[in-house]
Amino acid sequence: MSKVAVVMGSKSDWNTMQETCRLLDEFEIAYEKKILSAHRLPDLMFAFSENAKGNDFSVIIAGAGGAAHLPGMMASKTTLPVIGVPIASQHLNGLDSLLSIVQMPAGIPVATTAIGKAGAKNAALLAIQILAIQNEQLTEKLTNYRKNLASEVIQSETELL
Amino acid sequence: MSKVAVVMGSKSDWNTMQETCRLLDEFEIAYEKKILSAHRLPDLMFAFSENAKGNDFSVIIAGAGGAAHLPGMMASKTTLPVIGVPIASQHLNGLDSLLSIVQMPAGIPVATTAIGKAGAKNAALLAIQILAIQNEQLTEKLTNYRKNLASEVIQSETELL
Amino acid sequence: MSKVAVVMGSKSDWNTMQETCRLLDEFEIAYEKKILSAHRLPDLMFAFSENAKGNDFSVIIAGAGGAAHLPGMMASKTTLPVIGVPIASQHLNGLDSLLSIVQMPAGIPVATTAIGKAGAKNAALLAIQILAIQNEQLTEKLTNYRKNLASEVIQSETELL
Amino acid sequence: MSKVAVVMGSKSDWNTMQETCRLLDEFEIAYEKKILSAHRLPDLMFAFSENAKGNDFSVIIAGAGGAAHLPGMMASKTTLPVIGVPIASQHLNGLDSLLSIVQMPAGIPVATTAIGKAGAKNAALLAIQILAIQNEQLTEKLTNYRKNLASEVIQSETELL
Amino acid sequence: MSKVAVVMGSKSDWNTMQETCRLLDEFEIAYEKKILSAHRLPDLMFAFSENAKGNDFSVIIAGAGGAAHLPGMMASKTTLPVIGVPIASQHLNGLDSLLSIVQMPAGIPVATTAIGKAGAKNAALLAIQILAIQNEQLTEKLTNYRKNLASEVIQSETELL
Amino acid sequence: MSKVAVVMGSKSDWNTMQETCRLLDEFEIAYEKKILSAHRLPDLMFAFSENAKGNDFSVIIAGAGGAAHLPGMMASKTTLPVIGVPIASQHLNGLDSLLSIVQMPAGIPVATTAIGKAGAKNAALLAIQILAIQNEQLTEKLTNYRKNLASEVIQSETELL
Amino acid sequence: MSKVAVVMGSKSDWNTMQETCRLLDEFEIAYEKKILSAHRLPDLMFAFSENAKGNDFSVIIAGAGGAAHLPGMMASKTTLPVIGVPIASQHLNGLDSLLSIVQMPAGIPVATTAIGKAGAKNAALLAIQILAIQNEQLTEKLTNYRKNLASEVIQSETELL
Amino acid sequence: MSKVAVVMGSKSDWNTMQETCRLLDEFEIAYEKKILSAHRLPDLMFAFSENAKGNDFSVIIAGAGGAAHLPGMMASKTTLPVIGVPIASQHLNGLDSLLSIVQMPAGIPVATTAIGKAGAKNAALLAIQILAIQNEQLTEKLTNYRKNLASEVIQSETELL
Repeated sequence: MSKVAVVMGSKSDWNTMQETCRLLDEFEIAYEKKILSAHRLPDLMFAFSENAKGNDFSVIIAGAGGAAHLPGMMASKTTLPVIGVPIASQHLNGLDSLLSIVQMPAGIPVATTAIGKAGAKNAALLAIQILAIQNEQLTEKLTNYRKNLASEVIQSETELL
Repeated sequence: MSKVAVVMGSKSDWNTMQETCRLLDEFEIAYEKKILSAHRLPDLMFAFSENAKGNDFSVIIAGAGGAAHLPGMMASKTTLPVIGVPIASQHLNGLDSLLSIVQMPAGIPVATTAIGKAGAKNAALLAIQILAIQNEQLTEKLTNYRKNLASEVIQSETELL
Repeated sequence: MSKVAVVMGSKSDWNTMQETCRLLDEFEIAYEKKILSAHRLPDLMFAFSENAKGNDFSVIIAGAGGAAHLPGMMASKTTLPVIGVPIASQHLNGLDSLLSIVQMPAGIPVATTAIGKAGAKNAALLAIQILAIQNEQLTEKLTNYRKNLASEVIQSETELL
Repeated sequence: MSKVAVVMGSKSDWNTMQETCRLLDEFEIAYEKKILSAHRLPDLMFAFSENAKGNDFSVIIAGAGGAAHLPGMMASKTTLPVIGVPIASQHLNGLDSLLSIVQMPAGIPVATTAIGKAGAKNAALLAIQILAIQNEQLTEKLTNYRKNLASEVIQSETELL
Repeated sequence: MSKVAVVMGSKSDWNTMQETCRLLDEFEIAYEKKILSAHRLPDLMFAFSENAKGNDFSVIIAGAGGAAHLPGMMASKTTLPVIGVPIASQHLNGLDSLLSIVQMPAGIPVATTAIGKAGAKNAALLAIQILAIQNEQLTEKLTNYRKNLASEVIQSETELL
Repeated sequence: MSKVAVVMGSKSDWNTMQETCRLLDEFEIAYEKKILSAHRLPDLMFAFSENAKGNDFSVIIAGAGGAAHLPGMMASKTTLPVIGVPIASQHLNGLDSLLSIVQMPAGIPVATTAIGKAGAKNAALLAIQILAIQNEQLTEKLTNYRKNLASEVIQSETELL
Repeated sequence: MSKVAVVMGSKSDWNTMQETCRLLDEFEIAYEKKILSAHRLPDLMFAFSENAKGNDFSVIIAGAGGAAHLPGMMASKTTLPVIGVPIASQHLNGLDSLLSIVQMPAGIPVATTAIGKAGAKNAALLAIQILAIQNEQLTEKLTNYRKNLASEVIQSETELL
Repeated sequence: MSKVAVVMGSKSDWNTMQETCRLLDEFEIAYEKKILSAHRLPDLMFAFSENAKGNDFSVIIAGAGGAAHLPGMMASKTTLPVIGVPIASQHLNGLDSLLSIVQMPAGIPVATTAIGKAGAKNAALLAIQILAIQNEQLTEKLTNYRKNLASEVIQSETELL
């Protein structure tokens, strides 16, 4: 099974994006994590994206904040699905990151998730759901994961009472 | 190759979602289109989503506006990837639709695209990019589509001068 | 007199929703509290809502945050009045929760209150006001409650001087 | 069965609020419609609200736009449930109306619906759902109304194909 | 010289509105401070506003947060100028307060200042500027106040270097 | 009785600001109207504001859109009360105008009214209410104006039925 | 004197960006206009920006809408000053464009102007002001342009009276 | 080489604007820093801007928060390029500052950067990029600065692994 790329715009995004990696670890999905700033490393970013398919990546997850160009620009250089995670920005709480990532023009999609850690987790799950389309074992893991989520909710209710 | 489901919350969403279908047609991707209101047909919606994998769907695209619950609720009933398209709403221009779709809690992702027709087109392309991961012929079609996009831009410049 | 259901999407919502329960306790209104995630327990949520009237509930209060689908989805499965409380979300402060709850399409209403604890309290009061329509004793309690609110304001002024 | 009051802040709100009246007519609910500006007729507004219960009203529906004080101020003068409809304002599309209505302080709730005509319709339905709590005939009408909504969606799909 | 009324919706607004009183003290303007909740003390609020002119008030300053109806409702009951101060709200940082106060319909103005303490100070200054129109002594005080503001800025620069 | 200055940032603001002038005409208040762009005529604007009091003006009304600096800059050069009217801007509907006018720093107040024509009318009424503080005849006119507003609402209701 | 590059993301941006070109024509500044989509022509865009200085450009003006990555990405490939013009987007009126352009991370600036045609004109003027720093003739032209702006405002006032 | 002016509206802006000065120091660019409140020192502000070119300044950087009039008003009095830095405001996080600075009318541009410290840094870099247009030594420094940025990103990745 091919790999997932977990890319982020700066080291400060790691606090959020480690949630992506934790879930990929939990599902035993192979991945590589990279810091590839769209604005400070544009050529490396382009090269990475252009070669991602050839380097055996199946899905790219990219987290970025503010004028968050990383997911969209990587998407422009590959036909692999790119998942964008809006990192919560300091002043506008990630609303700028969200709009910069999700409002892509027709032709170049970015699969956008929620702002912050919830989005980072869901980016991993979305990648896994994509890889699971033709992988029954992975589908089963996802089904179990969902069952655990449900059990935790039911359990949490007992703690409430 | 398995099918794509194109689901929308009401008939008025068709004006937007037909862009999804046009692109799927252009790429010769099999799809079914459905009107499945989360609020007015909740049971049918759940049944459709629960059975989607068994009915040979690979990806679900769901467009909805306002308190746009359709993509997230379908996502809660399947492990297939669900792509959400925020339909432009009458009063808030789709900002409500966007936030209702993208801000999903950790555990149940929805791959969100841009508000309106650009998002509807990109939802199709995202589905195709997902299906293309292990389909070289489809990847080639996508590569040609990208080349055509580029040619159109270059051509449009000549018209400008 | 029939019961009120106080439902929330996750245990973390309890910090807000306990305000609802405190007020229901104060008015001696029978209630049950439940954690019923729209996304992680969709079937239980539907079953609960569908059976709420038969199980002697009169009003459902549902609190949720982010892409807050819980109130609207419960509303789609019952003709009981559903009151939605937007929980303050981490990044967008509950603006996403508010829009996801209040912008329901024509046909399926959710009675929305303010973001956070004020809304949680008012959800209880709204339920009580609904139950009081044909209950003079409860109306009297509400009138006394209002008098106490007024007295507290008047008292607070003396502390200011 | 007691009556519903349909109150609006100015004649220009009628275009929106007639949707409320149409639905009340359809369900054969007795109602009175009033124009009672919070700012231009404050005393009449207070008197109407204070006497509403005595005048055999059960529910008050109030639509207003901009700095929409009407629903909240009526709520301050009655223990009847007050439903607020945010009218779409000229410049901010009803976002101001929505926040002015929904963000009520703890103590005085307003049951807020969506901006504009969808909200006006849902205000009627919410009032009917409240009246139906202990009225099986009205519950049955609501159930039929929901069935018709569902049928219309299913029918609309056939038109799409 | 007649008095200024400094009214606030709850005791928690005092933290902000004391800035108003400090400036009125500094300018030796007579004032009374009141807590007069629009929603919890509607009749007292109306009575106060209706009688304000007769009770020798010249200007009313009203601070309120959230669905901030206090300034607008007082304005509806007097022809005295009413100055509204949007108190910073817990979840929306005063954006709701601002829109609820400033977006008044044609006919009943509220002179709105900035959100929070800056607005509370400016409400006092605005009242003083109004009273100073035909009061040369007060105009002179204002001119001196402005000179001091300017001196402080110039002084602050020396501290910077 | 002294005059009111009605200043606007460009000729295109006249469509809005003529509402101010109509009301001043109706109340027979002397006024002068000026186009005084903060950005294109900064020196004339400063001179006008600095000399306004000496030239027998009592109140300045300033309408501006977008980065609406006119009201605040005039306020910095006079101790007369300055009323700011946010003109609806082309792309952000006056939200930028509103924030640019209302969010003044402590020290220099601008009395802000609603966005657009309602705000332009209310600016006139606010100026008149200021002038009426010690003018019983003007207060009487305002009282009659309010009575007419009320009569119109009552009349409009009869048209509705 | 070296040239200005006027770049836009798609042909539909021309309606806005022609305002830039008109002003450059008026000031007789040499320029080239290009359509260089960040997402559809990423390599050409990078090449253009990387070579801009060598090709005798002094300033780059880039207009883009939605997830407007063009100005920021060009800025990442050159040390020439890049001016970004947020094109008004269909659904969010350019608020997305503005945030995507202006919220650049530390290290790579984009000089952002207003949304739409005003911003397009000002982008030209900003470029001219940059070129005028050490060009007295151009400074004189700018001074005359300003004088004409002032004259037009003064003239427009006479038309108002 | 001529100087840069670093102007801010109040001493509290220094926390942000010192980032501008640090970068100018790093590039050995001559600059003067000034506190010049648009509202409290309007005449000094105008005089400074009017004389800036004559006093050998080439670029003006102005930081301001809230109703941030400083950059735009300085721009109205000079043909030098003015760079505006939106300081994060207390209640609206700098969204008001951003709109007040960037939404300038056609004719008088302000080159706006990001909210807060990122914008303060980029204002310095933008000024340097402007000065570097015809200064090869400065261009080289910028190129080295960019290389260092890139190296830091690459280095940060090694720390992540």
